[in-house]
Amino acid sequence: MSDAPASQSRTSLCPVRFAPSGEAIDVPAGTSLLDAAILCELDLAAPCGGQGRCGRCRVRVTSGDVERRSNSGLVPTEVLDGWAVACQTFAMGPVEVEVPERRQATVRPHGHAVAEPESLPLTCDWRQNPAVRTFVLDIEPPSLADNTSDFDRLRRALSQQHGIEEVRAELPMLRRLGKDLRMANWKVNVTLEMRDWVYGTYLPPRLIRIYPAVFPQASMGVAVDLGTTSVVAYLVDFTTGRVVDTASAYNRQIACGDDVISRIIYTKRKRGLEHLRNLAVETINGLLDELQKRNRIELYEIHEMAVAGNTTMTHLLLGLDPRYLREEPYIPTVTSAPKLVAGELGLNANALARVHVLPAVGSYVGGDITAGVIASGMFATDELTLFIDIGTNGEMVLGNKDWLLSCACSAGPAFEGGGVRHGMRASAGAIEDVFIDDTTLEPSFRTVGDAPAVGICGSGLLDLLAELFVTGVVDKSGHIDRGAPSGRVRVRDGVPEYVVCWAREGGADHDIAITESDVIGLIRAKAAIYAGFEVLCHSVGVDLADVQQILIGGAFGQYINIEKAICIGLLPDQPVERFKFLGNTSAQGAYAALLCVNIRHDVLDVAGKMTYLELSADNSFMDEYTSALFLPHTDLAAFPSVRDALAKRGDPAAGKPTNANGGASA
Amino acid sequence: MSDAPASQSRTSLCPVRFAPSGEAIDVPAGTSLLDAAILCELDLAAPCGGQGRCGRCRVRVTSGDVERRSNSGLVPTEVLDGWAVACQTFAMGPVEVEVPERRQATVRPHGHAVAEPESLPLTCDWRQNPAVRTFVLDIEPPSLADNTSDFDRLRRALSQQHGIEEVRAELPMLRRLGKDLRMANWKVNVTLEMRDWVYGTYLPPRLIRIYPAVFPQASMGVAVDLGTTSVVAYLVDFTTGRVVDTASAYNRQIACGDDVISRIIYTKRKRGLEHLRNLAVETINGLLDELQKRNRIELYEIHEMAVAGNTTMTHLLLGLDPRYLREEPYIPTVTSAPKLVAGELGLNANALARVHVLPAVGSYVGGDITAGVIASGMFATDELTLFIDIGTNGEMVLGNKDWLLSCACSAGPAFEGGGVRHGMRASAGAIEDVFIDDTTLEPSFRTVGDAPAVGICGSGLLDLLAELFVTGVVDKSGHIDRGAPSGRVRVRDGVPEYVVCWAREGGADHDIAITESDVIGLIRAKAAIYAGFEVLCHSVGVDLADVQQILIGGAFGQYINIEKAICIGLLPDQPVERFKFLGNTSAQGAYAALLCVNIRHDVLDVAGKMTYLELSADNSFMDEYTSALFLPHTDLAAFPSVRDALAKRGDPAAGKPTNANGGASA
Repeated sequence: MSDAPASQSRTSLCPVRFAPSGEAIDVPAGTSLLDAAILCELDLAAPCGGQGRCGRCRVRVTSGDVERRSNSGLVPTEVLDGWAVACQTFAMGPVEVEVPERRQATVRPHGHAVAEPESLPLTCDWRQNPAVRTFVLDIEPPSLADNTSDFDRLRRALSQQHGIEEVRAELPMLRRLGKDLRMANWKVNVTLEMRDWVYGTYLPPRLIRIYPAVFPQASMGVAVDLGTTSVVAYLVDFTTGRVVDTASAYNRQIACGDDVISRIIYTKRKRGLEHLRNLAVETINGLLDELQKRNRIELYEIHEMAVAGNTTMTHLLLGLDPRYLREEPYIPTVTSAPKLVAGELGLNANALARVHVLPAVGSYVGGDITAGVIASGMFATDELTLFIDIGTNGEMVLGNKDWLLSCACSAGPAFEGGGVRHGMRASAGAIEDVFIDDTTLEPSFRTVGDAPAVGICGSGLLDLLAELFVTGVVDKSGHIDRGAPSGRVRVRDGVPEYVVCWAREGGADHDIAITESDVIGLIRAKAAIYAGFEVLCHSVGVDLADVQQILIGGAFGQYINIEKAICIGLLPDQPVERFKFLGNTSAQGAYAALLCVNIRHDVLDVAGKMTYLELSADNSFMDEYTSALFLPHTDLAAFPSVRDALAKRGDPAAGKPTNANGGASA
Repeated sequence: MSDAPASQSRTSLCPVRFAPSGEAIDVPAGTSLLDAAILCELDLAAPCGGQGRCGRCRVRVTSGDVERRSNSGLVPTEVLDGWAVACQTFAMGPVEVEVPERRQATVRPHGHAVAEPESLPLTCDWRQNPAVRTFVLDIEPPSLADNTSDFDRLRRALSQQHGIEEVRAELPMLRRLGKDLRMANWKVNVTLEMRDWVYGTYLPPRLIRIYPAVFPQASMGVAVDLGTTSVVAYLVDFTTGRVVDTASAYNRQIACGDDVISRIIYTKRKRGLEHLRNLAVETINGLLDELQKRNRIELYEIHEMAVAGNTTMTHLLLGLDPRYLREEPYIPTVTSAPKLVAGELGLNANALARVHVLPAVGSYVGGDITAGVIASGMFATDELTLFIDIGTNGEMVLGNKDWLLSCACSAGPAFEGGGVRHGMRASAGAIEDVFIDDTTLEPSFRTVGDAPAVGICGSGLLDLLAELFVTGVVDKSGHIDRGAPSGRVRVRDGVPEYVVCWAREGGADHDIAITESDVIGLIRAKAAIYAGFEVLCHSVGVDLADVQQILIGGAFGQYINIEKAICIGLLPDQPVERFKFLGNTSAQGAYAALLCVNIRHDVLDVAGKMTYLELSADNSFMDEYTSALFLPHTDLAAFPSVRDALAKRGDPAAGKPTNANGGASA
């Protein structure tokens, strides 16, 4: 069904074996795994018919020799784990393939698969220079002849037994020290924060915990991505450096508003800021609780934390008044948080655990983006890199190891399912990807958790828009073709719409449709993002085509189908191999800063050197935005692959540039 | 009535004029001021008849030329202020004398007269190296073109306008920063802690306060002597360095026990420690309140504090479990408190004000003694010095600038009026000094505040014992002579006693007496102190006679009559000029550390190098104690002045050493 690569002779036969069914077949080298599965009569969904468009035919190659044409829709960790798009992956020798059960295949990967220190950017010296260490101490009990204070005895033992010359303790630690030492019969483990500094000056180690030496040692850390919508926590074992578990939950602040602006407005209520702060803390504490129970650790064994979030989220967590983030000229109180411990924030880790809040760059380029720049490694590469994190705001950073330029464009809530009639967050029952047959105009879709469809989430909307455009249901201006040959296209209250899921098929008590207004909203959202790319590039005199790699991070980014995103003009029309999905870069960056002391310096360095371009102070942004208010763009020459596809379909628009006023589609 | 010094010709006449009466007289040079007053028929009390024993004839020399034989009973600041003992002070030229009204003369000086930076030991560099400074800042308001965060704008202005390159802020400061800057229209005063350090490393200045530049500046500090019985606070103006006001109150913890041991026992109750901590905080807050109201300042203008107290008091203030201070081998949790701010302790100064708790040496040599060593200047002198602070515990330090050796002897509560039938604290109506006529055995006494007598305080008991001893009512073993020719000596329930004040004369509903049991208790108390002196000296191989100066600090010390204290063997029999009363050295040391950054280093240095001798681990202490259980001592040769006085009186004990078992008086 598809063209095989010509790199190997077609005459050799390759045995392909499918698990768990056990079916096997010998196919000529270069046969796609989808074709092999079809020959075995396996039930592998492929609604796009093997064009590599729908991404539905994912399988896992457990061993063997394959050649991949595209990994569209897969994140790098999935590829490493063997996941492949069956129609775009070709047997070149004996292959073992695992066909996921439908349930497994459709549960959204949360982008927080277990991580290892080796996955961190550059060298991480955590073994040589650990952030937290635990020491066994055998302290000499006091006597009348040696009446040194409890704390000084402990210091003396640390010096004599471990060469730690100085140590600090805070009041809560001292309040229990006398009892702790005596109950442990002077044989204790002490956990120290080893690498605490103030403005570049390292301070002596700080006492976090003390407990009887007979108790087992566990020393954990937690990295948190504090998102506006979702909060993700990684549990890190400081003895191995690995992420041993992850947990995620909706930010409980959602009850007070979906996006950062409505949360900021909420703080104007009496005790509004306090309430939002509590909700952020409760959300994180809920995750700590879940991780604690599942991993049979104690909360006080969490000895350090790192939190990355956008500037509004970190202001709310710290209880800083966020109102000036929203009022022109959009000023944060602070970009780097002061030194904090869990106890003062109300976080249920060890009360003395240091909490590192990753520094922001500006009001709309936060610590999550600093974390992303770190996790992506772009801060250390020679290659001209564009890092993007798309959500309600599209934050983007252009640069390399020498310079970094960032901006944020307000895309509105469409990509998170907001402001769209049947939009919803990516929870159970959300339509998350869509394929439309170009002959029948009938859709096929997948939902989160394989649940009956109840709405459409951001990635589903993006897919849907691209499918409606390539099948001609929606024209380049975003108008729905009222004469399209399908019962799914209809007009309600004067507004045309396309029904994705009939009420009888789904889990909602109504048809699930996308309206022309929704489409216009989505086009505005994608135009804002694309205009950001252009302004960033122009302001440093480079062209989008010069960008050597485009790294997509953030919670939403990992679910984007690149080809479809290019098709609607959200992403620049560059070769697919230049794009990389990085998964949850905010959590990854927090993990890196948590584990590696040297990366904490990189974090401060990155936040300090990143320039923040305020788009509302930049006149060229509106021009770029207006030019991008078409599918894929006013300047079709900038989207050659889309132009070619349209030409192939016979669309007249492919031949001539579209008029900026959209007159061509009137 | 007394022998005049021979230093000037007696033939010249000196005009002496007394205020406020206006009486004047010309007297021969060398005439005592008491004699001059008697010639003018002024009512100046002199119950001892001008022997310099009772100290009752105090006057103030406002101008003129006098020669002083003794300043017995006066503290140095009083002497500087012109106070003199009239019978021991001689006119040598024209003299103006102020005779205090009886009321004024008898109000106890609280030892916390207004102090100045010049009174501090050695050089205090507070003007060159201030602990706290306030700067005027004119911050550029933000714009779209300059969207630096609020905190970074403030930092930038501090750097550009005052050369302060770095500054730190904590969460409570950041939480109000955005609003504060905008309400002040970006013109603010900022108050910084300038000299904050951790283990010898100076940290960047720390933001304590920010307020509109149009507001008046006031920058104050408070030094606190946190005593077991009394708490004293000095209000310091950081712009002049002067103590502008003082306040004192009883420690509210007294409700939970009079002495440190009973307070420690109290902490074993449920929430006992918390309760005592709160009472300490409330006591200090009460003083802050009083100082604030009287001086029309705001509590948030108190930008820094220093607290000196004994080890139990500082443990309780910090909420550290004090139980191990009391249990052998008597171990404090910590001797140096961690870095603290007022807010975390609950003190009502500016919540961000640094609170320096002066470091202790051991469980029974606390920060009050470290403060005393500083205030006395003994840490910087070549002279062999004995510093003593007598209260429930007699703490003492021997040494000079090269070495310091300290110990503490439990004297029991007798010197604070405890454990004595009619003992009381030095509050209104307490008999505070006593003179007994050696012929009639009739007493005359003064009370605190000139109120009707209700009991006897520590200094009164000490006077009384000395008077009873020199008049022969009490013998060297502490037995009351039942045959003494006075109706005031009587036996009640088989125990002899001496009535100081009949019920009809005083303010109590009973006679106020001292019993033989009380006398024995007082002898034990003084023996413990004196034994401490001896052990300290012997342990470094010096003799008490080698000590070049004996400095008496502490709240009680300043009320001791040296001659009487020598008479009973509490103080060593050294020339009176070797003794100096220093007043409240604990508060003075706290004041020095509060104002002078360099003295804070001295404080740490002193606490670090002072050796703490645990007397319960020293066998020689019991021997010395037993030898001291007599009046004045078993070894009368060590008390030549007392021996001479006894011989003059014809006491046979003066001629031969007393048997250590007290058989001589049986």
